[in-house]
Amino acid sequence: MRALLTSLSMTVFLASVSVADPLPSWTGTATKAGIIAFVERVTDPASADYVTPAARIAAFDNDGTLWAEQPVYFQLLFAIDRLKEMSAADPEVLTSDVLRAAAEGDMEAVAASGTEGLLEIVSTTHSGLTVDEFQTEVRRWLDTARHSGTGLAYDDMVYQPMLELLSYLRDEGFRTYIASGGGLHFIRVFSESAYNIPPEQVIGSIGNGSYSAGDGPPRVMKDPGIFFIDDKAGKPVAIEARIGRRPVIAVGNSDGDFQMLEWTTAGTGARLGVLLHHTDSEREYAYGRDSHIGQLERGLDEAGSRGWLVIDMARDWERIWPSGE
Amino acid sequence: MRALLTSLSMTVFLASVSVADPLPSWTGTATKAGIIAFVERVTDPASADYVTPAARIAAFDNDGTLWAEQPVYFQLLFAIDRLKEMSAADPEVLTSDVLRAAAEGDMEAVAASGTEGLLEIVSTTHSGLTVDEFQTEVRRWLDTARHSGTGLAYDDMVYQPMLELLSYLRDEGFRTYIASGGGLHFIRVFSESAYNIPPEQVIGSIGNGSYSAGDGPPRVMKDPGIFFIDDKAGKPVAIEARIGRRPVIAVGNSDGDFQMLEWTTAGTGARLGVLLHHTDSEREYAYGRDSHIGQLERGLDEAGSRGWLVIDMARDWERIWPSGE
Repeated sequence: MRALLTSLSMTVFLASVSVADPLPSWTGTATKAGIIAFVERVTDPASADYVTPAARIAAFDNDGTLWAEQPVYFQLLFAIDRLKEMSAADPEVLTSDVLRAAAEGDMEAVAASGTEGLLEIVSTTHSGLTVDEFQTEVRRWLDTARHSGTGLAYDDMVYQPMLELLSYLRDEGFRTYIASGGGLHFIRVFSESAYNIPPEQVIGSIGNGSYSAGDGPPRVMKDPGIFFIDDKAGKPVAIEARIGRRPVIAVGNSDGDFQMLEWTTAGTGARLGVLLHHTDSEREYAYGRDSHIGQLERGLDEAGSRGWLVIDMARDWERIWPSGE
Repeated sequence: MRALLTSLSMTVFLASVSVADPLPSWTGTATKAGIIAFVERVTDPASADYVTPAARIAAFDNDGTLWAEQPVYFQLLFAIDRLKEMSAADPEVLTSDVLRAAAEGDMEAVAASGTEGLLEIVSTTHSGLTVDEFQTEVRRWLDTARHSGTGLAYDDMVYQPMLELLSYLRDEGFRTYIASGGGLHFIRVFSESAYNIPPEQVIGSIGNGSYSAGDGPPRVMKDPGIFFIDDKAGKPVAIEARIGRRPVIAVGNSDGDFQMLEWTTAGTGARLGVLLHHTDSEREYAYGRDSHIGQLERGLDEAGSRGWLVIDMARDWERIWPSGE
């Protein structure tokens, strides 16, 4: 009888441990253990590394960290779809070679145009309307466009293990922020529904803006031109300006996140840097050192000496998408 | 006996009503009643004007709204004190007439130099150091400098009735933001201790910034030049970029706040605009239409037709400073 009771309690105990696993889609590797050990260390009031709730800030990159970014940034696909619509209504919007190439879907020419061409496409398609109008367009696109590889809606191509990490951190008193090279107004359209991250916790790149009133209802306009690019060295500057605190945890996947992780982990007290390495050509994509999108070279070279954790997607993630495997 | 008991209960009842007054330093005027009626209307789930907690954003101007701004903006006094220190150590920082005038305390010449001169003084004294170093300097100044009129520390010259309003709104589920023409990094030094407003809820003007690493610890620098001025039409643009929601309540005191109130109160559903009119030459200052600092003309002209509440400081406030009368 005692043996039976013990066995029963063990079962109940194991069941409750399993229910309590905050990261069920992560395999039981050192990466998962390292993340959990860090969070326990900074949230235990008895720990020398205790961090007060107000200071518990976690900053996540978006493209390639919270959702996929291949074969090209999803926001660029939105911009090109929108450019096609705009030019069908008024061909005169195509004022340059790169805009004409983009409207024809010539992705090689778009790629060859580099950052300058990309910014021209984004600026042209992301201006001349109010923030509300723009976000309505993005929502409409997300509701209808589908990814060429998976057939999924783009905002369903978020990483289930990252959703669990966001949720776990919030349960432990962290505020989760996005710090993305992607567009602030673009990301806000799905950040709440996809990640449970409210608009005020989204940091991203932004075009020029202005206020209009008098000739219509008071409104904030999106104007041509880039106001701030939240990438590379821009990330620490924007995070500091927006939050006024150095994060305790920073999570990224490319060298565009290097400075964010460097600045974060140089702070006093316990800090955690995490890089996601895309190693899974079967379930997602495998890329890094030589990739045109999401290049990760310096990060891989220096993660070890800097004590950053590197997630090996194929090894560390049991499951990729919320909708399945 | 019954009479005694009734009288006792009445006393207890009245005492608890008095304890429950959320705005004890406000006189019992229509202004106070209007604010409380609005807050009750948008927080009552049974009301047609109910606003969900996530959307309860209140934006407050700082200079002249939360703390005093006479005889000149306190941040300018800090800048001039800092310029004096800088030029004592190295006279070569005084590269222009307006900088020389400021270092000599010639406020008339500073005033005559207009916005351009003011920005030059601010840029010179607010750059060339890290954000942390700058904020240490501001803290040191606040701890030692005293206001010429009251003898108080500048961060004690906050308005007690506004502290009560901030606290009341937070108790009712609002998040209270500062949206100030003053400097973001300057205000954050005292926003938490003075107003209980955390750094991530401070919106303000900001100079250029950059990230440095490699030649020292990773750090965010304050560089020369102005990046964004959060005043007039800049306020709606910055609030939209920072919060991603239109406030439900906006509170200001000058025409620099006009667009913030206009945009806020043009939103759908119930919205409240409030202007503080400085009418109290005895306990504080009386200024408005013709003032060089905190001019309030269009706001006074249009408040009535727009349904904005105007606080008459002399009439509506029982008490001004936390430290006394």
